[in-house]
Amino acid sequence: MSLTNATPLEVAQAARSGSRKLAVLSTEERNAALTAIHRALSEGKDEVLAANAKDLKAANNAAEGGELSQSLVKRLDLGKKGKYEDMLQGILDVRDLEDPINKTTARTLLDDNLVLSRITCPIGVLLIIFEARPEVIANISALALKSGNAAILKGGKESNHSFAAIASIISRALSTTAVPSDCLQLVQTHDVIADLLKLDTYIDLCIPRGGNKLVRMVKDSTAIPVLGHADGICCTYLRGDAPTPMAVKVIVDAKVSYPAGCNALEQLLVDTDALSTILPLVAKALLQKGVSLRCDAPSLSALQQTLDPHSAALLQPSTEADYDFEFLDLILAIKTVNSLEEAITHINTHSSHHTDAILTSSPFHAQAFLSAIDSSSVYWNTSTRMADGQRYGFGTEVGISTNKIHSRGPVGLEGLTIYKWVIRGEGQVSAEYGAGGRAWKHERLPVGDGDGEWVAQNEEERELLRRFRAEKGGVNGA
Amino acid sequence: MSLTNATPLEVAQAARSGSRKLAVLSTEERNAALTAIHRALSEGKDEVLAANAKDLKAANNAAEGGELSQSLVKRLDLGKKGKYEDMLQGILDVRDLEDPINKTTARTLLDDNLVLSRITCPIGVLLIIFEARPEVIANISALALKSGNAAILKGGKESNHSFAAIASIISRALSTTAVPSDCLQLVQTHDVIADLLKLDTYIDLCIPRGGNKLVRMVKDSTAIPVLGHADGICCTYLRGDAPTPMAVKVIVDAKVSYPAGCNALEQLLVDTDALSTILPLVAKALLQKGVSLRCDAPSLSALQQTLDPHSAALLQPSTEADYDFEFLDLILAIKTVNSLEEAITHINTHSSHHTDAILTSSPFHAQAFLSAIDSSSVYWNTSTRMADGQRYGFGTEVGISTNKIHSRGPVGLEGLTIYKWVIRGEGQVSAEYGAGGRAWKHERLPVGDGDGEWVAQNEEERELLRRFRAEKGGVNGA
Repeated sequence: MSLTNATPLEVAQAARSGSRKLAVLSTEERNAALTAIHRALSEGKDEVLAANAKDLKAANNAAEGGELSQSLVKRLDLGKKGKYEDMLQGILDVRDLEDPINKTTARTLLDDNLVLSRITCPIGVLLIIFEARPEVIANISALALKSGNAAILKGGKESNHSFAAIASIISRALSTTAVPSDCLQLVQTHDVIADLLKLDTYIDLCIPRGGNKLVRMVKDSTAIPVLGHADGICCTYLRGDAPTPMAVKVIVDAKVSYPAGCNALEQLLVDTDALSTILPLVAKALLQKGVSLRCDAPSLSALQQTLDPHSAALLQPSTEADYDFEFLDLILAIKTVNSLEEAITHINTHSSHHTDAILTSSPFHAQAFLSAIDSSSVYWNTSTRMADGQRYGFGTEVGISTNKIHSRGPVGLEGLTIYKWVIRGEGQVSAEYGAGGRAWKHERLPVGDGDGEWVAQNEEERELLRRFRAEKGGVNGA
Repeated sequence: MSLTNATPLEVAQAARSGSRKLAVLSTEERNAALTAIHRALSEGKDEVLAANAKDLKAANNAAEGGELSQSLVKRLDLGKKGKYEDMLQGILDVRDLEDPINKTTARTLLDDNLVLSRITCPIGVLLIIFEARPEVIANISALALKSGNAAILKGGKESNHSFAAIASIISRALSTTAVPSDCLQLVQTHDVIADLLKLDTYIDLCIPRGGNKLVRMVKDSTAIPVLGHADGICCTYLRGDAPTPMAVKVIVDAKVSYPAGCNALEQLLVDTDALSTILPLVAKALLQKGVSLRCDAPSLSALQQTLDPHSAALLQPSTEADYDFEFLDLILAIKTVNSLEEAITHINTHSSHHTDAILTSSPFHAQAFLSAIDSSSVYWNTSTRMADGQRYGFGTEVGISTNKIHSRGPVGLEGLTIYKWVIRGEGQVSAEYGAGGRAWKHERLPVGDGDGEWVAQNEEERELLRRFRAEKGGVNGA
């Protein structure tokens, strides 16, 4: 890892060059690098925490001056109970996941001794821009190396000292492994971002992890593909046939369990026939948890008639703007709908295509909803908070994507890979087929892993392998 | 299909609205639309050819005036023997491919009665910009509808009359089917492209099919993801241990069988130990086919010493620029390399990451090459011309992508799909797991097709289905 004063172009070129060498390393070599990083960060805990203390001191001063929120200061603190150990364990967790590259995912017999294989491989160079939390650097580094990608990392300025310490430790650790240190590049100054975003020749994918503003800025200013989501406006549609206890439980979880999460519930759509049956109990439970309810006219009127005066007094009328807003807070917008179609149309128009749910006892209405909602995750009878890589069983996640291409929803290691098409032949040529008289066989063959692995069979080959992977003069190019 | 005077925003909104309805249609309904289009274009052949004659007349005039090439005029001509019938057959071929949407590609048991499924679905709205050939409109329309996507199509101005005729026939055909006509929008004026490229809220993917200039213009001016390739600079690396007859056959096919194709060979890298053994025979065969050879100093010298004086006189010295240029013509740049590493570095730097090949008898050198080359297709002992969707067994292709995300290499129907994550539960919530005491099961379940299908079971449900799919007042939203 380079803590760099290099120009953005030099950073990107070095990462590209490193990525070429990293891409041909074996599973064992990449895993060994993660083990080395884990050990080094484990041994370097005091060094990192000392640097983190400097960041915290500056942040506390800024917070006292009102320039920084207390919650941001908390997120900065690596000394918080168990946080450093969780970060360390995260590296080993990623190491122990299945290798996502060199997997053969399709094989076709084109003709005798002419076989087409689709083999997963790294994307190349990732640019990851994130805010605040310094432990993310270890997590992202582990994910990038595990999937064979080089990464340029740009963290928030509030955690500069922590980043520098972690970066220098990772750099020292990598120098003892087969992974070139150039594969991880730390960028510290904000003003290089604009230049990096222009380098689509060297950078293959940009992942902004942060607020709406950051993501929009990135999307609007680069030809590099961007993976992520700007907003998390999640909706739940409550039908009159949903069991009331389930509705209360699911909606409370979706709104209250972590209101700052991108998968938290922001809008509740209620069928007219649930207004005075299920909704009052849902509303009461939410009010008890301190949630502000912003209601449209029919739901406001229904709740005012059914809730006790104290609760009813807490209700607020909603405005149109509430249905296009991500509160990230204990606030819920409630809207009345007259039909499944109206709910679907509202969600496809106003949700941010992140995660939306229906609560109903009718499998048919559920299926109609699941089919018609155009969002990355769509649920029946469960909480929108389920949208998470760890909960989906991916081990970890890079973020959540609302993109319509490549990777959608929680992005795990698989989202950091692409594939190449490989043909192994014995001299067959295109003109022999079709008008040339030969017919394609196009038989699907069974697939197995390791088809893309490159294993030396003798000393000559091992020597070639070593030369190939040598830090200098190895495989290169942009 | 609308032949439209609408504003770009209206076009995009109509396509988005149509895409919502199209996405929930059954396989049979989408296939029936393709059958209807096939029948209508079959019956409307005279109408289309009359319109095509107008385009041809204008093009011939322009060609006489030197404003248009004769090859472009040829590409315009739909009356050419078999061309119209091929276009018609292409529609049926796409119809008869496996349905790429509503396929369950992964299933995980998160907990008892809490199942996560990954289900393929359409991307949404495609913007396809192409040059010249009017039959592409039928091909692209078929691919878009088959995969459940709406498409905005912008063709070349030279084929305006043909497009208008085909569009009006397709529009009439669609009006008899469940597919809303809004799902195909034809845009005729060039000046709306800039506006359409700004509408990333409504358009999900842009596919430019045409020259380098068009693709670069599109990539540089939109936040919509772009699928395609700007250049096809394909390389082949010839090692000294390759059998000479195979080398001659493969290289001649790659260069000569269709020099204007993006998968045609543009650069031959030759190991020093093949310079005076295999290369002379390769060069002789190429010269006999009329190929101009642009050689670096070592290969030029080797060939001058081994070829007959007549052949040697045809050789040209290369310039550095020849190694970054797509000739699309009977021209080949030849470069000498001293090692596998040098070949790999050259290709990773100078090829356009489209298709590159190695010719060798050594499986190890082949494997090293296949692993290290960062291109969408990488071959051992076969011609770069194999890079083609039909040859890969995809039935057809939308184009060839050199992107590092989503779809790489020849893009078939699968490249026009994405997936959504669906969870079916019975009231489970996030707070129950982890600290809440319950453990995730994360068991992989077998996958099957049709999980995303939505089939009405009784009259009430059939009525709901009908209302849902009604042309007006149906599922909508942006």
